[in-house]
Amino acid sequence: MVFTSLDFDAPGKQQGFLQVPYSHNLGGWANVLVPVTVVQNGAGPTVLVLGGNHGDEYQGQIAAMKLAREVTTEQVRGRLILIPSLNFPAAQAATRLSPLDGMNLNRAFPGDPEGPVSSQIAHYLTTVLFPLSDVVIDIHSGGRSMEFVPCSHMHLVPDRAQRAAMFSAMLAWNTEFSFIYADIAGSGLLPVEAENQGKLVVTTELGGGEGVSAKVHRVAQQGLRNVLIHVGLLQGTEETRAGLGLPPTIITQALNRDDYLLAPESGIFEIMVDLGTLVRAGDLVGAIHHLERPDRAPEPVVARSDGFLITMRVPCLTRQGDCVAVIARQVSADEVLHA
Amino acid sequence: MVFTSLDFDAPGKQQGFLQVPYSHNLGGWANVLVPVTVVQNGAGPTVLVLGGNHGDEYQGQIAAMKLAREVTTEQVRGRLILIPSLNFPAAQAATRLSPLDGMNLNRAFPGDPEGPVSSQIAHYLTTVLFPLSDVVIDIHSGGRSMEFVPCSHMHLVPDRAQRAAMFSAMLAWNTEFSFIYADIAGSGLLPVEAENQGKLVVTTELGGGEGVSAKVHRVAQQGLRNVLIHVGLLQGTEETRAGLGLPPTIITQALNRDDYLLAPESGIFEIMVDLGTLVRAGDLVGAIHHLERPDRAPEPVVARSDGFLITMRVPCLTRQGDCVAVIARQVSADEVLHA
Amino acid sequence: MVFTSLDFDAPGKQQGFLQVPYSHNLGGWANVLVPVTVVQNGAGPTVLVLGGNHGDEYQGQIAAMKLAREVTTEQVRGRLILIPSLNFPAAQAATRLSPLDGMNLNRAFPGDPEGPVSSQIAHYLTTVLFPLSDVVIDIHSGGRSMEFVPCSHMHLVPDRAQRAAMFSAMLAWNTEFSFIYADIAGSGLLPVEAENQGKLVVTTELGGGEGVSAKVHRVAQQGLRNVLIHVGLLQGTEETRAGLGLPPTIITQALNRDDYLLAPESGIFEIMVDLGTLVRAGDLVGAIHHLERPDRAPEPVVARSDGFLITMRVPCLTRQGDCVAVIARQVSADEVLHA
Amino acid sequence: MVFTSLDFDAPGKQQGFLQVPYSHNLGGWANVLVPVTVVQNGAGPTVLVLGGNHGDEYQGQIAAMKLAREVTTEQVRGRLILIPSLNFPAAQAATRLSPLDGMNLNRAFPGDPEGPVSSQIAHYLTTVLFPLSDVVIDIHSGGRSMEFVPCSHMHLVPDRAQRAAMFSAMLAWNTEFSFIYADIAGSGLLPVEAENQGKLVVTTELGGGEGVSAKVHRVAQQGLRNVLIHVGLLQGTEETRAGLGLPPTIITQALNRDDYLLAPESGIFEIMVDLGTLVRAGDLVGAIHHLERPDRAPEPVVARSDGFLITMRVPCLTRQGDCVAVIARQVSADEVLHA
Amino acid sequence: MVFTSLDFDAPGKQQGFLQVPYSHNLGGWANVLVPVTVVQNGAGPTVLVLGGNHGDEYQGQIAAMKLAREVTTEQVRGRLILIPSLNFPAAQAATRLSPLDGMNLNRAFPGDPEGPVSSQIAHYLTTVLFPLSDVVIDIHSGGRSMEFVPCSHMHLVPDRAQRAAMFSAMLAWNTEFSFIYADIAGSGLLPVEAENQGKLVVTTELGGGEGVSAKVHRVAQQGLRNVLIHVGLLQGTEETRAGLGLPPTIITQALNRDDYLLAPESGIFEIMVDLGTLVRAGDLVGAIHHLERPDRAPEPVVARSDGFLITMRVPCLTRQGDCVAVIARQVSADEVLHA
Amino acid sequence: MVFTSLDFDAPGKQQGFLQVPYSHNLGGWANVLVPVTVVQNGAGPTVLVLGGNHGDEYQGQIAAMKLAREVTTEQVRGRLILIPSLNFPAAQAATRLSPLDGMNLNRAFPGDPEGPVSSQIAHYLTTVLFPLSDVVIDIHSGGRSMEFVPCSHMHLVPDRAQRAAMFSAMLAWNTEFSFIYADIAGSGLLPVEAENQGKLVVTTELGGGEGVSAKVHRVAQQGLRNVLIHVGLLQGTEETRAGLGLPPTIITQALNRDDYLLAPESGIFEIMVDLGTLVRAGDLVGAIHHLERPDRAPEPVVARSDGFLITMRVPCLTRQGDCVAVIARQVSADEVLHA
Repeated sequence: MVFTSLDFDAPGKQQGFLQVPYSHNLGGWANVLVPVTVVQNGAGPTVLVLGGNHGDEYQGQIAAMKLAREVTTEQVRGRLILIPSLNFPAAQAATRLSPLDGMNLNRAFPGDPEGPVSSQIAHYLTTVLFPLSDVVIDIHSGGRSMEFVPCSHMHLVPDRAQRAAMFSAMLAWNTEFSFIYADIAGSGLLPVEAENQGKLVVTTELGGGEGVSAKVHRVAQQGLRNVLIHVGLLQGTEETRAGLGLPPTIITQALNRDDYLLAPESGIFEIMVDLGTLVRAGDLVGAIHHLERPDRAPEPVVARSDGFLITMRVPCLTRQGDCVAVIARQVSADEVLHA
Repeated sequence: MVFTSLDFDAPGKQQGFLQVPYSHNLGGWANVLVPVTVVQNGAGPTVLVLGGNHGDEYQGQIAAMKLAREVTTEQVRGRLILIPSLNFPAAQAATRLSPLDGMNLNRAFPGDPEGPVSSQIAHYLTTVLFPLSDVVIDIHSGGRSMEFVPCSHMHLVPDRAQRAAMFSAMLAWNTEFSFIYADIAGSGLLPVEAENQGKLVVTTELGGGEGVSAKVHRVAQQGLRNVLIHVGLLQGTEETRAGLGLPPTIITQALNRDDYLLAPESGIFEIMVDLGTLVRAGDLVGAIHHLERPDRAPEPVVARSDGFLITMRVPCLTRQGDCVAVIARQVSADEVLHA
Repeated sequence: MVFTSLDFDAPGKQQGFLQVPYSHNLGGWANVLVPVTVVQNGAGPTVLVLGGNHGDEYQGQIAAMKLAREVTTEQVRGRLILIPSLNFPAAQAATRLSPLDGMNLNRAFPGDPEGPVSSQIAHYLTTVLFPLSDVVIDIHSGGRSMEFVPCSHMHLVPDRAQRAAMFSAMLAWNTEFSFIYADIAGSGLLPVEAENQGKLVVTTELGGGEGVSAKVHRVAQQGLRNVLIHVGLLQGTEETRAGLGLPPTIITQALNRDDYLLAPESGIFEIMVDLGTLVRAGDLVGAIHHLERPDRAPEPVVARSDGFLITMRVPCLTRQGDCVAVIARQVSADEVLHA
Repeated sequence: MVFTSLDFDAPGKQQGFLQVPYSHNLGGWANVLVPVTVVQNGAGPTVLVLGGNHGDEYQGQIAAMKLAREVTTEQVRGRLILIPSLNFPAAQAATRLSPLDGMNLNRAFPGDPEGPVSSQIAHYLTTVLFPLSDVVIDIHSGGRSMEFVPCSHMHLVPDRAQRAAMFSAMLAWNTEFSFIYADIAGSGLLPVEAENQGKLVVTTELGGGEGVSAKVHRVAQQGLRNVLIHVGLLQGTEETRAGLGLPPTIITQALNRDDYLLAPESGIFEIMVDLGTLVRAGDLVGAIHHLERPDRAPEPVVARSDGFLITMRVPCLTRQGDCVAVIARQVSADEVLHA
Repeated sequence: MVFTSLDFDAPGKQQGFLQVPYSHNLGGWANVLVPVTVVQNGAGPTVLVLGGNHGDEYQGQIAAMKLAREVTTEQVRGRLILIPSLNFPAAQAATRLSPLDGMNLNRAFPGDPEGPVSSQIAHYLTTVLFPLSDVVIDIHSGGRSMEFVPCSHMHLVPDRAQRAAMFSAMLAWNTEFSFIYADIAGSGLLPVEAENQGKLVVTTELGGGEGVSAKVHRVAQQGLRNVLIHVGLLQGTEETRAGLGLPPTIITQALNRDDYLLAPESGIFEIMVDLGTLVRAGDLVGAIHHLERPDRAPEPVVARSDGFLITMRVPCLTRQGDCVAVIARQVSADEVLHA
Repeated sequence: MVFTSLDFDAPGKQQGFLQVPYSHNLGGWANVLVPVTVVQNGAGPTVLVLGGNHGDEYQGQIAAMKLAREVTTEQVRGRLILIPSLNFPAAQAATRLSPLDGMNLNRAFPGDPEGPVSSQIAHYLTTVLFPLSDVVIDIHSGGRSMEFVPCSHMHLVPDRAQRAAMFSAMLAWNTEFSFIYADIAGSGLLPVEAENQGKLVVTTELGGGEGVSAKVHRVAQQGLRNVLIHVGLLQGTEETRAGLGLPPTIITQALNRDDYLLAPESGIFEIMVDLGTLVRAGDLVGAIHHLERPDRAPEPVVARSDGFLITMRVPCLTRQGDCVAVIARQVSADEVLHA
């Protein structure tokens, strides 16, 4: 059902929309329009850059919007497809889930052409855009609810060559931390669908919370450009942390349930450890305070493993079962490449 | 109408509530209970410590809840009255305004005993608790919408002796920045009512956004204790920035309309300057991006004065007229004390 | 602003409306119509019968609607003014407060002709209908949030003659319990305004909860007719509890704060005593269970005085500060008449 | 509290805003910005043109926005102040009432500088803009709930000279119908405040419903220009209905309660008479159908006076008490001028 | 799951309901009752008349309700099944989609007996009522969001005999315009299901917007009766446009994406062409104004094909992607019958 | 996807949670935690006790929470699995349906591991907990919308041995009434899934409305313990109605559509018969009053069969199609066991 007037095979730079039918009470024959920029110039990889898979994560949306305005046909070798705000209705509402259908787009793959708007978008990527692409870059952050140490991250895909290419591209973002993660809560992820199609997939968690600092914007915008150089799409010289005078990235991994600490009860969460700090199993990481009964001792949140505090809950007001902290242990490149 | 079973004159430590009548659809004869801790021990000042004037500012609420549990009668000289979550319904909802009456408690003073819940709370402070107090500490942050460099702050009250005492107490928080502010948008503030009653008023803006980092929690909790020592309520040795090996606080001031930069249009705000950084008039501080039309040039936000970026808007999704940045110029202690 | 086409001085039976202007988004020139029945027949008292002061209390509304349909001009001596659903918007929404303005009509007196709908209704009663009336009957129940032992009740008005007349009319409802109450949470009550105008005021609390049993409907409908006979408006023979073979009414009174038990914390309330049962100070009346932590001991609710459980909270889901039980001690008629 | 950086005394054309402070949960230091255009050029009247007093009436908003863009300094003699969307938050929400404070701006005069946003706007007009103005043009339509025959209209102000000037300006809009109205439902109207200050006030009801036809847009835009020529603000030749080959305007008047027909019950309203048609007392004008019981006879709505159907309710779904039709009798110019 | 106590085979006139189970928070064992009238009298076709497929389209609902009350058994030859408000919950809410399940009933076919209420209704038509019927009449309008020139319309079904019968019945509505349309935005339409079952399907778009003028009510009510005569269900003489002294219907067709004009951006839509007017490709049809920035040039909406403006968006407040205009080119009967 | 750290095979008493992944706007990696208590002690049946299948039915939730706290390992023979609030999000919201997904958990079986939270919970019971169990006890009440005479109840399962065991366990609850019911409105019930797996299933309807009286709490808590003794899980002596000096339970049955009386129209429902009373076909059971038109005769609700009023609607405000009364005829044990 998704339609676009863009011609993905035409040379040069085009600005257009994915047009997704959406009938609602105030628009019987309405559509959601998702802005897309396409730049095509000769031989080279096709790179799909996605922001706003979750609507409340603006780091990548802003980086992609700026790149879409600034990039010229001449700078490109191959084809660049930029969708700054993939879950467009959620981006307009600053929500993780689509306000139109309540869906988490990142759990909606492979999608359904007869489903709600999120399913239609997922289906279009699965059947049209992923097959066109060599590289898929999906820029996330913690959104409103979580804050990460700014990092690029990846799955341990089973194909070793694919994994090595992804590892190398992950490092090209030049973040202080890199993060190996697993999906313990659901299926239907966008990167998994792209990985299953054999693509070089690059993903990130660039900070979080409702705001984005100027510093994190720089990480998003410079990292994206560097990765695009790394994969041969943009002309230019790839930068490295060493070349920038920075220490090597710290590679971390959180694959066990025990690494994810949940709120034992609803209340007001206080984090007691700074992000990116090393903690030990048994350390007090935070506590849940009782607003109605401030005299009652708070509920402790204790680390169950050693590692870095890689992400924490942002809103102090917390419900039982919310993830309040993740502890990720340091691993070597070798472990990642051969695990 | 507000009732409490606490006896503010009794020696020792008591835990209780302000009981504010509130009739609603699910509770015809219901009340809002606002937790209060009172500790009385011999001669000394009466200090009123308030958190949660705005419900979404948890730095002070957590600092006050912890102090309420930890403080012993023996540590006190005088009387400590702690209300961790003054706008209790807003604290439970994580909102700036009270969800019960839509009011901004910090614009509700002097209050009204026949008004809605917020007005009743304001009236109780104005007529009962402020008259009991020598020192009023009202701990704010930027809440969900703004992030400040963590700072203590104050008004330029006309009484020079009162101003000098407030200045000295402001410095006792030991924050990197101090901030002199004016009220350009409304009357009815809690600190103004307390100032008008001649109290030593200490206020803060300790960061902001929905989350609070461990570092800012430390600033809140250590600063509060140090101010309580400074005013003679808690026993102990007062710390200073110099004693801690820190450079002097940077005193800043934003008293002109031009210091406050508003969003010229609704859209997605990108800050381009780090908090606490010095900018010059004419510098590009940020921009508003157009989600529906990413090809259109963003609307620039430009500094109109020289100074430090003392606070910025947090949520990227922004409406026309939202304050997105405040530029505060550096001033000397002399300027503050004698202006 | 309130208009009616009814002629309160015309003989016979009329059906009409109070017309209260209300401009809203779906009706620029709209009005709230409050149904009124007037029956006038020669000499006798003017009796104003009101249901639905709180919209979620349908006992009196149904009794008044049925009486309005059934009563004939011939049965009346004097003038009967029936307003079955006084807070009409709340009655349509089944809420205590008006959904149009959020007001508790029973705290809106004496009202304001330029105020919102509830204030306009209050003002019309204060300035037009109360002055016309000798007797004002305001039929309440506990509404959605509270359940009372079905009872008629009254204030201890200072005028002894007025008090004696009200006491006598209260007994004419023939309920098992009678209840002397005070207003500890607010001003602006409808009966207080009527009492201040010197009227014979009859009020009730006929059960509660969202539903009304057939038994309570009978108490409402038979009691209303008997009181109307008692005050000389309807022809017929007054019934008494003795004449019906029933024991005397139990007169109870709750005038102290300690008689009103509040939820110490939010949770799931369990009542442990049957309504109308005698309890002793120190008895466990109920408890608040913790849904998230069922292993934690529930918070006890303990009686602080001896007396009958005269009313209890209905919804199990309870917020801190909700009134969960009221204990009323038995008093003699003498105490009521001469206190 | 309202601030503007516009200089109303400066020559030439300026675009700016009224800046109204508004603190909310997503913007602690936010403002509502109301766009304003000012054009000043030498001697001549000051004319204040207002659209969007009710937010869901876009005829005048669009006419004013277009005029603001198109008008040049040279075309003006005097001063033109254009506020296309006076109740700006309501215009953004397409609602009659402000979504920020629930207020009807056209019942908020003279306003309150410490009140909510609507009150502040009203106060600014009352104290700043009306005193600057000679002519006040307030362009209304029926909004979402009502549709009028497109007409200009006026009050019968007591001052005969003011009335004559207003009558003449009313005719300059060149609408097929003109309408004399009274305020039977409330005070605080914008035009009344301006009239009381002695201004020449011109008002309209240009159709209605959520949509505006191209034809009605032409009436709004051409009428506005012609009135501005009529009062001497814009250069050009005034047009008349006669000059345009049109029959004289039909002057109508609805001053009695009986002219306003209310829905006797909630249901689905069917109008049975075309707008602008002459009806007789006793004619069936419409009916209310019962959705749940289509077999039950609909409730008739019957004219109580002779006259033209000047306005009707738009949404079929209707609540009891909504105004569904207004019947206005024809009057002569003489009656209007000398009544 | 849908149950009815109606006997579709019994002679005479019956009034009853479809009873659709619906369990909700305020009614555990509740049902939606959809009113149905059945009139059976001897030999003749079975005609199913449906209004309210979209709840906010009342033209057909009122026509069907009136017919249901007025029709007598004697007037019928065959069987008439009238469902005035098919999507009953939406009709009560004046919304296009069902408020119970968010579904568009006209995209819910063939339905699901275990699905939500809309799916159950669709399934009942698909499996019970369509098989009983020879003719299916589904009366639409533009609803709240669109206004059409009042017209009957049809699909180009592949079966030529079916198409010819439908064409002939379409003309029997005697509207000024007739409209050939295609489904470019989704499947699951009610008429498609009926067409696939080989029924003679008659559909309309009778105006639109929240209101219905008396004139359009006449078109709906007279057209429906004439079509029922045309198909042999009602006794009487069929009227024709020629017989009524009217010019032939203008047959129009919009089958290409370019015929449908979308809003290029959110804002305030101004239509610049009258409905039913002929436009040329390149003509300016409307524009989107910017409320926040009235000084910015509006976004133009330009026709991309020649034809009549057959429908336009009603609410001025418009979101990007809303359909704001449809241009339909004139075609001959021959084209329709043999395309 | 559901995870638990509980070991269902470990001896002794454990407290833990079912952890159900739930990603939402305020918690990207959040979970719903459903509290579970497991007590295991040697040989004996496994009994699964469930409260809160519908969130607004607290009788069983409180009984299960209390049992969970009080029961000791020594009291158990076999294994007790207690889930006090099965539909945990609904229990926190006091709603029948889950506020997270709008689902009725009691229509969600057998469930779906990839579905929303309710489906995941259902699937976990179907695939993990039911297979572990010999006895499944699912404690219901009428919830907010209905009130039952407190009773235990059962389906007529086809397996005679299973039916006899269920009948015997039903009687062990010792309620005044027992109730044989059929599912006339939907599939997917929890007890049906458990019955299909051959379990001994015990269910109840213990009163209803938002509140629970102390008396009904006693029935819930004593009945649950007695049934657990009856099935051999808890040690102790089983009580019988005869042993308690009570008359035999009245066994009733409502299997026909005519036993279920629906509201013929929306309005205010008045019940006219006391719960548990015997009525005859043709008796007036209640009526629907018209708030807007109190002069119109109410719509009668008439019994269509003889039997006891076994349940009635609670909220007076009623919508067309709500079930307002159920009439159940008395049957013998023989009829139940051999039907």
